[in-house]
Amino acid sequence: MSKNLAIVGVTGAVGQEFIKILEQRNFPVKSIKMLASARSLGKTQKFKGKDYPVEELTQNCFKGVDIALFSAGASRSREFADAAVKAGAVVVDNSSAFRMVPEIPLVVPEVNPEDIKKHKGIIANPNCSTIIANVPIWPLHKANPIKRMVVSTYQAVSGAGQAGMTELFNQTKEILEGKNPTMNKFKYQIAFNIFSHDSAVGPNGYNEEEMKMVKETRKIFHCDEIAITCTCVRIPVPRCHCESINLEFKDSITPDEVRKLLEHAPGVTVLDDQKNNRFPMPIDADGNDDVYVGRIRQDESLPDHKGINLWVSGDQIRKGAALNAVQIAEKL
Amino acid sequence: MSKNLAIVGVTGAVGQEFIKILEQRNFPVKSIKMLASARSLGKTQKFKGKDYPVEELTQNCFKGVDIALFSAGASRSREFADAAVKAGAVVVDNSSAFRMVPEIPLVVPEVNPEDIKKHKGIIANPNCSTIIANVPIWPLHKANPIKRMVVSTYQAVSGAGQAGMTELFNQTKEILEGKNPTMNKFKYQIAFNIFSHDSAVGPNGYNEEEMKMVKETRKIFHCDEIAITCTCVRIPVPRCHCESINLEFKDSITPDEVRKLLEHAPGVTVLDDQKNNRFPMPIDADGNDDVYVGRIRQDESLPDHKGINLWVSGDQIRKGAALNAVQIAEKL
Repeated sequence: MSKNLAIVGVTGAVGQEFIKILEQRNFPVKSIKMLASARSLGKTQKFKGKDYPVEELTQNCFKGVDIALFSAGASRSREFADAAVKAGAVVVDNSSAFRMVPEIPLVVPEVNPEDIKKHKGIIANPNCSTIIANVPIWPLHKANPIKRMVVSTYQAVSGAGQAGMTELFNQTKEILEGKNPTMNKFKYQIAFNIFSHDSAVGPNGYNEEEMKMVKETRKIFHCDEIAITCTCVRIPVPRCHCESINLEFKDSITPDEVRKLLEHAPGVTVLDDQKNNRFPMPIDADGNDDVYVGRIRQDESLPDHKGINLWVSGDQIRKGAALNAVQIAEKL
Repeated sequence: MSKNLAIVGVTGAVGQEFIKILEQRNFPVKSIKMLASARSLGKTQKFKGKDYPVEELTQNCFKGVDIALFSAGASRSREFADAAVKAGAVVVDNSSAFRMVPEIPLVVPEVNPEDIKKHKGIIANPNCSTIIANVPIWPLHKANPIKRMVVSTYQAVSGAGQAGMTELFNQTKEILEGKNPTMNKFKYQIAFNIFSHDSAVGPNGYNEEEMKMVKETRKIFHCDEIAITCTCVRIPVPRCHCESINLEFKDSITPDEVRKLLEHAPGVTVLDDQKNNRFPMPIDADGNDDVYVGRIRQDESLPDHKGINLWVSGDQIRKGAALNAVQIAEKL
């Protein structure tokens, strides 16, 4: 049952996390190909104690590969995924390239694992903030349909890759030394500052990150009726996204019912210690598989106890990207 | 028309801002008393180029004072406000001590200046996050009643005073040097991390900061029907709060209508450049009087164009505290 793997974009933040997770979960690997752009040639990548040369991503590099884990950006996915499929591989793609293509499954294994088997060579991995919201709200939605959700995100810089983290630390040092912060990766200062998410803003005023939450959630839940509005914000945290989620349900629901549903939900850890003001923080989720959920409260601004507020934190490189993709690969 | 002033808590973050604003706005000062606790005795405070000794806050220190600006915490306000009133002063109190006392006016000068004249010696200054939300939403509420609002805050550490800022910078240095961060002011790490607001959590699961937004807004707007739910979060930013505000109106409203109302609203600067992804950030509001508003979008999750999303940033030491109090004093 061992598989021949290829990691596309192995030198990136998610690529590195693929390696870590495959090792930690003892994924049955027969062979593994480390793929990146030509400028990474000459580098090596360790896997289970052995050094592998980084090879160039080309149209002909997928011979013999069973599963190709892609995380090299949407344009690379569009350019090379077909070649991988033609060579006989199943592509699990972490980019936005194929997520909204109707015939390509978009999968969160805790939500819609049954969609995996509908694939025709490509399975899309959802956006990080979508995955982190969907894992805890799906068990609630199954018990009592969610009619509307209002989400505000607090997103870590590494959602923009390793360059985002480097920028945060460099700018922080500059400011502490009394210098002006240098902008490379982001257009605006991120150290000791926050800004509206750095994805393009569409004609409706929403940025791409916000529209991903809306469209992807509906596709994953197979529920076009769920009304979603979202505000995405970048904050000076290296890793792990948080989200403030306001939910309106079809029927009444209590915080205790929500807590019980979440305590039994796969991929969720409830951290809701009101007495000690101890709720999910980015440093809790860092390096962990689960989405942490707390601040479970009745929203009294809605009638008939139909509203609930939640606060979640999840590792967006891990569950928000690499882990979710590896979980899909495991189910293949 | 010059007034004899007393600044209670002059050595704190808001106290220092009082001094700056009184100078900048050329407030007509006949005399000024710099008051603080006994441990600040021996210090001096500059005002318009002159040094004043810091005097001890006592029951007998308010003789001859016309207006006392209090910002020394709720327990000091409870202990000393009556003495100031008995000595003939009008107290503008920045603490939470008197905000919800029915006969004490709670005032945002852009919203309910007419309440000032109802005072019987004390006027309460609202909480910072309430003021920053209320200034931009009031002109909208007047044009089209707000039925419900869902707010998520991104609050700077200096909301917890100068000690909050010191903690952020110290922890940041420690982490950059590879050390463990030291917790003094806050219970949990704030550098490169965020946490649910550090005020006490009540039996309904909401912290005090969140309930202030709910109760104070209703009192200031003289509108008990407005439904409000709020999630308050502390972020690693030294100064200026941001808020993601989702509004449901009684009648349909377009983003253009909102933009027009806000462009003519006192105390508001619209910064809503969708093309350049240029929206309000903490560093925009820092040191400025106005609340900055952007990301004005139709919320398509509500029917009939009754929903609007906003993003605001305001200097919580300035408009969120000291400036608002000085504006009240000006109207006296």
